[in-house]
This record gives sequence, C-alpha cells and structure tokens, in this order.
Amino acid sequence: MIRTLYRPGQAELVDALRRPSATDRETDTAVREILDGVRDKGDSALRYYSEKFDGYLPLSLKVEESVIAEAAGSVPEELKEAINAAYKNIQTFHSAQLQKTNVVRTAEGVKCWSRNVGIERVGLYIPGGTAPLFSTVLMLAVPAQLAGCREIIMCTPPGKTGEINPLILYTASLAGVTTIYMAGGAQAIAAMAYGTESIPPVYKIFGPGNRYVTRAKELVQLDGVAIDMPAGPSEVMIIADETANPVFVAADLLSQAEHGADSQAIMLTDSKVMIELVQKETELQSAGMERNSIIRQSLEKSALILLDTIDDCLSVSNRYAPEHLILATADPYLHAAAVINAGSVFLGKYSSESTGDYITGPNHTLPTGGYARNYSGLSTSSFMKKIFFQEVTKQGVMNIGPATEMLATAEMLTGHSNAVSVRLKYITNEQNRSARKA
Amino acid sequence: MIRTLYRPGQAELVDALRRPSATDRETDTAVREILDGVRDKGDSALRYYSEKFDGYLPLSLKVEESVIAEAAGSVPEELKEAINAAYKNIQTFHSAQLQKTNVVRTAEGVKCWSRNVGIERVGLYIPGGTAPLFSTVLMLAVPAQLAGCREIIMCTPPGKTGEINPLILYTASLAGVTTIYMAGGAQAIAAMAYGTESIPPVYKIFGPGNRYVTRAKELVQLDGVAIDMPAGPSEVMIIADETANPVFVAADLLSQAEHGADSQAIMLTDSKVMIELVQKETELQSAGMERNSIIRQSLEKSALILLDTIDDCLSVSNRYAPEHLILATADPYLHAAAVINAGSVFLGKYSSESTGDYITGPNHTLPTGGYARNYSGLSTSSFMKKIFFQEVTKQGVMNIGPATEMLATAEMLTGHSNAVSVRLKYITNEQNRSARKA
Repeated sequence: MIRTLYRPGQAELVDALRRPSATDRETDTAVREILDGVRDKGDSALRYYSEKFDGYLPLSLKVEESVIAEAAGSVPEELKEAINAAYKNIQTFHSAQLQKTNVVRTAEGVKCWSRNVGIERVGLYIPGGTAPLFSTVLMLAVPAQLAGCREIIMCTPPGKTGEINPLILYTASLAGVTTIYMAGGAQAIAAMAYGTESIPPVYKIFGPGNRYVTRAKELVQLDGVAIDMPAGPSEVMIIADETANPVFVAADLLSQAEHGADSQAIMLTDSKVMIELVQKETELQSAGMERNSIIRQSLEKSALILLDTIDDCLSVSNRYAPEHLILATADPYLHAAAVINAGSVFLGKYSSESTGDYITGPNHTLPTGGYARNYSGLSTSSFMKKIFFQEVTKQGVMNIGPATEMLATAEMLTGHSNAVSVRLKYITNEQNRSARKA
Repeated sequence: MIRTLYRPGQAELVDALRRPSATDRETDTAVREILDGVRDKGDSALRYYSEKFDGYLPLSLKVEESVIAEAAGSVPEELKEAINAAYKNIQTFHSAQLQKTNVVRTAEGVKCWSRNVGIERVGLYIPGGTAPLFSTVLMLAVPAQLAGCREIIMCTPPGKTGEINPLILYTASLAGVTTIYMAGGAQAIAAMAYGTESIPPVYKIFGPGNRYVTRAKELVQLDGVAIDMPAGPSEVMIIADETANPVFVAADLLSQAEHGADSQAIMLTDSKVMIELVQKETELQSAGMERNSIIRQSLEKSALILLDTIDDCLSVSNRYAPEHLILATADPYLHAAAVINAGSVFLGKYSSESTGDYITGPNHTLPTGGYARNYSGLSTSSFMKKIFFQEVTKQGVMNIGPATEMLATAEMLTGHSNAVSVRLKYITNEQNRSARKA
C-alpha cells in the first residue's frame, strides 16, 4: 500500500522525497572496466560482452538493410498508423523549435548573428529488455533528423537469439536513423564514444538506460564526448486539489510506477479526502496489472502527501524538481506559471503523463533525479551547436576600435590592442591618401 | 619563427594541427585531492589552499560591499565608458537570444509549449593571474542576468596581499553579480559544486581557467553539477586568400598567441606569397610586444599552411573545428556558409578576433580543443533550462487517446495504457449520462 503522510514536518518530508540512489562504487568499477575493454579491443570486446550480458554472440554488429525492411513488413497497419501519428506530432513540435537566424546590429558597421548547425554524427542508445522502447527511437531520431545531423547511428542490444524488436527497427528506419548496430549496455556507449572497427565514434550520445549505461555516458564525457544529460530513475509528481479525479490520479501514479522498481510516484494535495480516495484506487487498479511486481516495489518509494495549501505543494515541487509534474487542479494555468523546476508539466485532469510519453509532441527524454534544476529535456537544439558570426566593416572598426584598444590594454593584452591598432592606422593612412588626391 | 608548410601531405597536416594536450594523470590526482578536501573540510580547506596557491590567507571569503564600491570609484571614467559600451553590445546581442513562448497545437485539444527559465543559482569563475579578465565577467554575468538567474555568485582568487583587481569588482557589480568570493583554482570549483560554510552550492558553473580548473569542472559534473563546456587552450584559425592584408593577419595570429604558451594560431591560405609576407610581419610585430616570451612559446605550436584552394582550407577548418575562425577572403559570406564546425567566425579583413573578445556582442566563451564539433559557445540559453508544458482537453483525449493505448500496449506498458483508458471510459460514461438526460 502506498505510504501516506499528513502534514509532515520538514525532516519527514525530506525523507519521503529522497530519491532511490542510482550509482555506487561497484557500478563505477564495472563500467570503467568495460569502457577500457572496448577502447582497447574494439569489436572483439563488444562481441565478448554481448555474449556475456545479452546471451548472444553477434558475427556482424551492423543490422542489415534486409532485416530492417523485413521488420517493417511485420508491423500491423493499425499500429503503423498510431506510430505515424506520434511521429507527426513529435515532428510538428520539434520543428517549431528550429530557430531563424536573427542578425543583430550592435553598432554601426557591426553585424552579429548565430547559426544553429546539426552535430555531424550523433549516437542514439535504445535499451533492450522487456519493453521495446520504440517511442524513444522517435523522441531521439526525429529531432536529430530535423537538426540536420548528417549521420545518426543507433545501438540497441540483441535478444538471446540475435533478434531486435521489429518495432524498434521500423521506427528507426521511419525516423531517419542511418545505421543500426547490435550492441547494448555500457559497451555500446564505449563503442559510440571511442569507435571500433565497425562502429564510428560520435560527437554526442543520447538515450536512456540502466545504471551501467547512464554511468558510462557520464564517464565518457571526461574523454570529450557530449551526452544528452545525466540520468536517474524516472519519476512523477502530481499536485491534486479537491477537484481532481482520484481514478485518474491513481492511474497516473501507477503508470509511472510500472517503469521500474526504482521509480518514484508522489502526490501532493491540500485535500485529505483525496489521499484516502487515491490510496484505495491505487490498490484497486494495480491489482490486475501485468507489471504488478515492479509496481509493488516502486510504490514503496512513493507517497501521498497532505500539505496545507496548493502553494505549499508548488514550493515543494520546485524544490524536488520532478521529471514529470501533473497539475490536476482547478486552475492549472495559474499553477503552471509558478513552476520553475520541472522537466515536463501536464495541465489539467485530462492531461496524463502517458499521452506525453508517446504522442502529444514534446520530448519524453527529460531530466530526472532533480536535474530539472540545471538541465532541460531534449529539444531539436540538443542535436545542434550554435556558431557565432560577426562582421565588422571599416566603419565598424572606427566605431568600436578605440574602445577595444582601451579594454585590451586594461586587461594587459597589448597584442589584442595591436590587432585593432594596425587596422585603425591603415584606415587613417588610406583616408590621408585620398585626402591628398582630392 | 612561425613554422611554414607548403602543400603538406595528410600525415604532416594532422601533425601540424595537433593541439597541445591539456590533461594528464598528475593533474587529475591533484584535482581529485582538492575536490575531496573542500567537500570534507569546507571553508577551512579553502583557506588552506588559498594560502598555499595564492599566497594569501583570507579571513572572510566574501568580498564586502564597501570594497566593491571603493573599486568602482577607482576606475577611470574613460575606461568605464568603454566597459559600458561593451556591456551594452553584449546585452543587445544576448537579449535577442531570449525566446518567446510559442504554443503549438499538435492535434485538436492538444496544446504544447516550452518556457525557458533561468537556473536558480549559477556560479561564475574568473581566473586571477597577470591579466584581469573583466571582459569575461561581462560575458558570463550579462547573459546570467538576462536569463533571470536569481543568484549569480562569482569566485576569483585574491592576489598576494588579498586584493582583487578593481576592474573585476566593478564589472561584476555592473553586470548584476550577487556575491563575490575570494577563492581560486580547483578549490573554488569544488566550493561552488559542493558548497561550504560561506559559499552556497550552485547548479551550474561557468568560466575559464587553467588545467586544474577545467579538470575540476569536468569532474564535479560526475556529482550532478552542470558546467558550461569542457575546455582546452585557446586557438585561432585564419583562412586568408591573396586579398588579405598580411599586417592584419599577423596581428591576429599574435593576439591569439599572447593568450598563453599553449595557444595555437594557424593560417591556412591558397597564396604562397601570403605565407612569406605573414611570416615576416609576425616577426616584425612580435619583436616589441610585452608578452613576447609567451608568444614565442605559442608560435612553436602554430603554423602557416599553404593548401591548393580556399575550399580545401574550409574543409581542413571544419575538421579542426577552431574556437575562432577569421575569414580574411574576398567573399567571406560565401565561405561562412560552408562553416559547420567553429566557435565564432569573423567575416572579412576588418573583423579581428580582439573586437569579438571584447565588444561586438556575441559571447567570447567558446568551445576550444575541437569541442566546436559538439558544443556551442555560451548564450543566454546556457543560463536557462527549458520546461515543457502540455494541455490535453477532453476533446484531446478522444483524439489521441486510442493511439496512445495502442502504442503503450505495443511497448508492453499497460499501466500507461490504463491511464488513458480510465479517462476515455469516464468521458464515455459522461456522454451516456447526458444522452439519457436529453
């Protein structure tokens, strides 16, 4: 049964909101060994780890075009239509994120602008396991394609007989993934970071994974590879007032809880009755659920918490910085305006996290573990880098040159000052020459 | 004398463009020890390291308001005006980067948008040493202020007598820095990452530094603190055709070279004459320069390289991914369009890197060491995180609900499907009830 807290004290509250810890020294050691292995031994290390962890020894790591084409054929039409609907919405939302170049004239003769350019080669990681996360393929590949990344490679682990879920292959091909490799875990991250005989090194790695994968991503950063964001277990916070529907709230808590045993689902409310109703509903609905054993474990870290006011709920939420925040209140727009730390916010009782996970349009790759305080969910710009441009004309040098000389000299960088002085001198000489001619 | 290469082979070219390596095991060990020290012992560790590395034992780490006010009084009016001009241009350019909220309707009854919110508490690092980098204070604090960061703290090391350069204090106060602390090196990074008795922990750390500082920033990332970007020594690449002015090119190479002994300054050209002229000019201009000993060392890693065409120069530049790229060519706009990897690009012979370093407007905190392939220079958005919002109405659930159920079921996440099903069921019941009433 999910825990209830009625007007908890500060310490009790902090304790209830403590997230399950994700990393430990043991994970670190294991991951470092795998990273070194793949860096030194390339493909042969990948094969070794695949046999060890996935139970399959792949001869070729690259998934052949014919296999991908065959997969597409095996997806039922109705499901394809649903996937296409999700694809279209994700594309619509992520297209709107593309920024137009905006030329700014900061002084006469000084034009500045920036251009967003797709990162040339990116790597997407899609976990294996029981749930074939084809929705994540869309969430990573669609913005990568819109960003104009020239090469989009994807790694995903094979099943015990060497198969990859056809839905993963179908969506990858739909969303413009260039090449798919059969590789999973920390070893796949190492391959994309350092490159092997088969897998080219990428400049940025995206995608979710277990604690080995996420730690591997954090560690390869130290070798110059960019990553989407650090990650911990998934989580939801629901702020519900008395107008919320306890059936919906319970369903939303459970949909989060089924993600994994270390997921956390928290309801904050100013209504005592809501706590009782949601607790009962949670029991009722979870009883028949397929992933009930995962849900049981995850609910142990979860809680229904009564606070004095909805404002208190919002301030606790801003401190917790949830990955997902559902505002099941009478005035969700008012409350949304007060949110300063969250990954994705769902307004009103009809907005469930699960529609956001699949089909509303915004990315579902979001900062967990409190990282919403300093990181953003994925957007098209996550797959691009910004290049600055500036043009200073002759007139521009005359306008901003003297100030630059003064600033550079004050920083004791006389070489910087000289680069302007030689230009100013040249312009003066030129002016003198034309004056003499006239 | 700066090295010249005439139509080098591939291996020779790669060798000439190899960047001075920044990290080593020794740095790593030293930095880890400092990080642990500050995490465990707080302020007392900061004082210990300050005495050891800066030669000064600070009693209070916080720089008092009175000291800052006094500093402002000591800055000459003329220099204040130059600083204000830079401040204004940086503000103009970075204001233009603020994004308006754009509501996207991805399906009927489904509205999605995102809002950029300033990171609540950020930390700026400003190095000490010979050059008082007050320009970097502006480049960090102006966008932080525009982003709406509530607290902007700054660490900078004291001199041997406990003083901090008045220009640094003046610009910090001008640009809205909340609190200034006397702390430098890896220990300042540790303090901002973990917090001490005096210094509060921040969510993201920005700013340049020596190899200890940059490694410290990379390592605290593993503990969940975001950083602006990884960093190496500064560098410039100049692409010059026969129309370039060799006096300007040489001055630009030297202004880069004076940054530090490990800076790299490269000219690529399709004109043999240009190489000879620039080499001579470099000797001439550097002879009288104040930082000549640093320049000598840095020019050892630098080169003037003849290639067949300007297109070849551009392709080498895109592979090198320079922090600064100057296009001293007859048609810089054409060539700028071909740039895909660079930090900041300067178009035309009158555009010097040094005006960009101080006053044109775009940020001068840029990706070095080839990181322009996967990282952007700083912008206002670097000080913000994006929060997604979505509202699904009753009509929206009816539109996208059934597809969500299908997708969730295909991912074997039936709890996700259930969260939609309970809503669809409720809506149907409600409709039946009103039908009966009618």
